[in-house]
Amino acid sequence: MSKEEKKVPYKIYLEESEMPKAWYNVRADMKVKPAPLLNPATGKPVTEADLAPVFCDELIKQELDNDTPYIEIPEEIRSFYKMYRPSPLVRAYCLEEKLGTPAKIYYKFEGNNTSGSHKLNSAIAQAYYAKKQGLKGVTTETGAGQWGTALSMACAYFGLDCKVFMVKCSYEQKPFRREVMRTYGASVTPSPSMETEIGKKILQEFPGTTGSLGCAISEAVEKAVTNEGYRYVLGSVLNQVLLHQSVIGLEAKAAMDKYGITPDLIIGCAGGGSNLGGLIAPFMGEKLRGEKDYRIIAVEPASCPSLTRGVYAYDFCDTGKVCPLAKMYTLGSGFIPSANHAGGLRYHGMSSILSELYDEGYMEATSVEQTKVFEAAEMFARSEGILPAPESSHAIRVAIDEALKCKETGEEKTILFGLTGTGYFDMVAYGKYHDGEMSDYIPTDEDLQESISKLPKI
Amino acid sequence: MSKEEKKVPYKIYLEESEMPKAWYNVRADMKVKPAPLLNPATGKPVTEADLAPVFCDELIKQELDNDTPYIEIPEEIRSFYKMYRPSPLVRAYCLEEKLGTPAKIYYKFEGNNTSGSHKLNSAIAQAYYAKKQGLKGVTTETGAGQWGTALSMACAYFGLDCKVFMVKCSYEQKPFRREVMRTYGASVTPSPSMETEIGKKILQEFPGTTGSLGCAISEAVEKAVTNEGYRYVLGSVLNQVLLHQSVIGLEAKAAMDKYGITPDLIIGCAGGGSNLGGLIAPFMGEKLRGEKDYRIIAVEPASCPSLTRGVYAYDFCDTGKVCPLAKMYTLGSGFIPSANHAGGLRYHGMSSILSELYDEGYMEATSVEQTKVFEAAEMFARSEGILPAPESSHAIRVAIDEALKCKETGEEKTILFGLTGTGYFDMVAYGKYHDGEMSDYIPTDEDLQESISKLPKI
Repeated sequence: MSKEEKKVPYKIYLEESEMPKAWYNVRADMKVKPAPLLNPATGKPVTEADLAPVFCDELIKQELDNDTPYIEIPEEIRSFYKMYRPSPLVRAYCLEEKLGTPAKIYYKFEGNNTSGSHKLNSAIAQAYYAKKQGLKGVTTETGAGQWGTALSMACAYFGLDCKVFMVKCSYEQKPFRREVMRTYGASVTPSPSMETEIGKKILQEFPGTTGSLGCAISEAVEKAVTNEGYRYVLGSVLNQVLLHQSVIGLEAKAAMDKYGITPDLIIGCAGGGSNLGGLIAPFMGEKLRGEKDYRIIAVEPASCPSLTRGVYAYDFCDTGKVCPLAKMYTLGSGFIPSANHAGGLRYHGMSSILSELYDEGYMEATSVEQTKVFEAAEMFARSEGILPAPESSHAIRVAIDEALKCKETGEEKTILFGLTGTGYFDMVAYGKYHDGEMSDYIPTDEDLQESISKLPKI
Repeated sequence: MSKEEKKVPYKIYLEESEMPKAWYNVRADMKVKPAPLLNPATGKPVTEADLAPVFCDELIKQELDNDTPYIEIPEEIRSFYKMYRPSPLVRAYCLEEKLGTPAKIYYKFEGNNTSGSHKLNSAIAQAYYAKKQGLKGVTTETGAGQWGTALSMACAYFGLDCKVFMVKCSYEQKPFRREVMRTYGASVTPSPSMETEIGKKILQEFPGTTGSLGCAISEAVEKAVTNEGYRYVLGSVLNQVLLHQSVIGLEAKAAMDKYGITPDLIIGCAGGGSNLGGLIAPFMGEKLRGEKDYRIIAVEPASCPSLTRGVYAYDFCDTGKVCPLAKMYTLGSGFIPSANHAGGLRYHGMSSILSELYDEGYMEATSVEQTKVFEAAEMFARSEGILPAPESSHAIRVAIDEALKCKETGEEKTILFGLTGTGYFDMVAYGKYHDGEMSDYIPTDEDLQESISKLPKI
């Protein structure tokens, strides 16, 4: 440790009074708007009426609103945010020293809440609007469990019923995640289940199946539309989710502005895009308006490379094909990524907003291999203390690589990355890494061609 | 949620410049000092020379120093503290509302670091002094794993070797905890092991044993004294540990002073006493000096009630009887508490400092039953968001009970309690609670007489 007094503290916390009072809607500053969702039956852009049986009314408005730049955060949501936000913007002094880099590394840490990730930012918003609409409860699906946990916490707070369909193999392999959700009063059903028609049908067809996210989505949607007073909610990909997650970037930018810091480089992991979209939102706004320039990098797993190796086309959001079609960078909704321990990044597509911004060249994308990701995760844990989630560690990997480039060139770049969560429920993955049993399978061109060739014809 | 602006924010964070620069040694203000440790061979107070083969030199000085009120926190430790401290002092607005109490409830939350508890505060100090002494590494034991994790993190930071003996049944039942320690580079050995003479002996005598904390301590001590460049470190009970943990209380008091808040009641869970001793330190100092009065309550599990049902006498600190004798409230070193999911509170004795303060009437003690504790834990999780550790939930239980008394009497008392950690690795316990499979066995008077009758004759 250097003995000189640090000008910037290790952690910058905003005051409550400095916390954002409105979410920022980056679509308002996009000249080309993200392509609209299409109704799969008609092939036409979805209307509020199309979505009303599935989603809450206010969230549908947010989903379709491409014009309003700032949307007020209701006071009840701001109160909940105050329980676990502002999240700290951390200066990675110890990592910098370990790397011997002249770069200045910052990370926005979203893991200091019981859901263990940024997902809570949107969960509480979606639960609030459901409550405000007078609904009884909401349904959702969860794979690894972060989103289900976040939604359970949010529903417990507002006294809403919460039905979670959890992919059966995760339900069995991750009993602790399930138990956390039960602690918050959610009912957790392994999917496929006998509780829905689609579940029954799938079980009849494939009696031994351990489930999939696509199937769990289908069950959650069916449960919502067939039960009076219920709606379905989703934790990523959608425009509304990126809107809520803008709180990450708004806080990060306010904290940096307070100390006169401007990032040269902004890095985030990208699965469905909720974290990356939220982190970069206000920075991207400045870039879109031509006020400032930032290098922005999306990091995806080499095993599921939607931006770097996918196509930009209309596709189903879910493998069950019950949801609207979205235009996005996709590997095809039938693509099944190889075993990868960053469950939150195993999604075949990408948020329409981010897809459009990437297509127009406003951001870059890169992919990284799993063992390299865990190597970075371990280095980060040992220097910064925090045990990172495998998803977040994709961003850490690229941040470290960029900082090492600065070491070579002597450039004092300022790097900001998103540390989306903690890895406490991912120790099986860490164990495989320690034991040298982690695979780095990357899909072949043939693999990708196979699933991409089955995109819907629009 | 009330619509009025809150005068006190949800979370009070100190600025870096406001963080404590010295630990507070409550012994300096005690008229009757805690009884000295005794050398079991001679029956006389231990000397620095007695302890030198086992503990680091500087830590021995701190252990024996009953007079210096403030001991400077070395800059390297303060730098590390800045990575995860200050911990927030939280106003439990949501819990208050749920309870409908006029009481004002605050908690000092120590769980926002990867070790998941306050243990890191002393681990980093002990690792620092070991490094400064030029040692190669340290040894320790761990049961549930919090202390082992904290020490692994601290050793990774200073590049020290860390050998952890983990009670075999925990090693097998908690592979995730073990994996976290491996991530930080520690070697974790199930105890009893073939790595030590005492381990071999125990395995020969009891081939099927799943180990005990007492046995793990013995192995860790043997490993330290028989290996050049190693010392043994301990995470609770000792005076030095309470000294380091005073950072909890110092921060809490500084945060309260900043907003002109004075607690009427301070509540903490008590196992070996590290958290409670740290939380109350500066408040107890004022009480000892006659400057202020506070009601201070130690909460212990009904299954392991050392303060409320033990005797105040000299006893072994460990079941293996290799450590010095300490005068403390104890149930006898042979006492084996019934299954209780708050592993950190399953200790037969209590810090000598707290024992003396309790004996003199400076603090109260109460015990609570396990299912009542989990009921409070769940209520807390659902209103405040944080999933608490079973240990911490003992304090939550009593805080809630006191807040409910205020509801009856209309008193607006200010309650401060210590939320020592998170329960992410305790989901088996939560599951038993949800499934109604949790037992509330309380030792009978005969049980206690049995173990207390075997105290060493001093």
